[in-house]
Amino acid sequence: MRIDKHSNIPLYAQLKELLLERIQIGLYPAGKQIPSEQALCEELQLSRPTVRQAIAELVSEGTLVINKGRGTFVAADPERLDILNFSPFTFSFLSMKSLDGMQLQNIQRLETHEEMEKQFGAIGSSHLGFWNIHWLLQADEKVFGWCQTFIPVYMFPDLAQDITAERRMVDMMANKYAYLPQKGNCKVLVRAASDEESQHLDISRRSPVLAIQARLVSRSSNICEIVQVALRPDLIQLSLDQGRS
Amino acid sequence: MRIDKHSNIPLYAQLKELLLERIQIGLYPAGKQIPSEQALCEELQLSRPTVRQAIAELVSEGTLVINKGRGTFVAADPERLDILNFSPFTFSFLSMKSLDGMQLQNIQRLETHEEMEKQFGAIGSSHLGFWNIHWLLQADEKVFGWCQTFIPVYMFPDLAQDITAERRMVDMMANKYAYLPQKGNCKVLVRAASDEESQHLDISRRSPVLAIQARLVSRSSNICEIVQVALRPDLIQLSLDQGRS
Repeated sequence: MRIDKHSNIPLYAQLKELLLERIQIGLYPAGKQIPSEQALCEELQLSRPTVRQAIAELVSEGTLVINKGRGTFVAADPERLDILNFSPFTFSFLSMKSLDGMQLQNIQRLETHEEMEKQFGAIGSSHLGFWNIHWLLQADEKVFGWCQTFIPVYMFPDLAQDITAERRMVDMMANKYAYLPQKGNCKVLVRAASDEESQHLDISRRSPVLAIQARLVSRSSNICEIVQVALRPDLIQLSLDQGRS
Repeated sequence: MRIDKHSNIPLYAQLKELLLERIQIGLYPAGKQIPSEQALCEELQLSRPTVRQAIAELVSEGTLVINKGRGTFVAADPERLDILNFSPFTFSFLSMKSLDGMQLQNIQRLETHEEMEKQFGAIGSSHLGFWNIHWLLQADEKVFGWCQTFIPVYMFPDLAQDITAERRMVDMMANKYAYLPQKGNCKVLVRAASDEESQHLDISRRSPVLAIQARLVSRSSNICEIVQVALRPDLIQLSLDQGRS
């Protein structure tokens, strides 16, 4: 867009739109300095008060930031932790290589119930119930996620005992080849945090979380794990790579 | 958890926690009816006022919903459109099979600038500038997403003309084998909507969107497209399937 001096729209408002456009198309990237007032006046043939007003409004709206003595900058995107090669396996308990550093919250055994069996697609097969494990995801001493998983007890009868005894993952999974995740599906969505999630993630009640629900299928074609993850939306981003055959 | 009649915590508060736990582990699934007051009284040996108070609080917090004459239900998750087989190609313009039904907003040609070239990783190669195309994603007459893409003009010099003339995608891409997306990376994150996005998506200013930034690499190993998508967080979910080799 261009500044139109004959338009009914005030010049400062036109300049504001133009600056926003330049930010949006990446001409002025996030975190970088924009040209000085003087430079904008000269480039666009505008008066100093016009330029100043446009910048002042963008500052008050949080789009620009004035850094005293250094100039005016496009507000930086917050630094986020990149979850690399995101897949349905990323937050799966059974796919972990090691439990070292895992922020285990608790592990409990749930009695079997029909709704859970329905989710596992195997009514009647899970008379031993389900393990329900909770853990926190943490980086730089900041909690960025809260996970809970459900695993049929008949597949891993000693799981709670093994975890408590700090057995190595590789030993716990040694004879379990048929029950390890082989395929998976996950849903990624934004929803309001539950009270429990907002407490663990230290965010306000009912504020949005990036939620992941993954369902993992074993080599024996049974669902072996259902994971539910709530992530702090301001701290992380999921990164996906894919080729096309 | 169990109700402890000797605890200092009021019984209705304990029952509330117990009901929340049952909802969370899926024993009472979203959208489904919970047992009647009478049934809960009997199962847990509680008085009617205690059960009534716990339920009333969960209703006022939005966790439960009373359906007059039918009973009390767990609040349903909103229906979301499933974006199946989500990948870095999902919202790519160059990966579209057809432009039929595409809600094109505009296509403009941007002059080349260093920041954009940096993003494409090819300084100096894009003296012809970039196509910048905007379109809406819509289902059931509801806009659920807003896309913009950047494509180097030197790869597709006639793109604007071809689109305006409503050429078929298959013809537009006929001799462009080397420039078509072959690999891609994308980031999925939650961020505040820009003013423009909130207008298009009909959501409040600065409210969260599910954002996708995809970078597509052609068969000739150049970046051929950079797509930015803002999705209505309440209307959609991304679905990913993956096998393990």
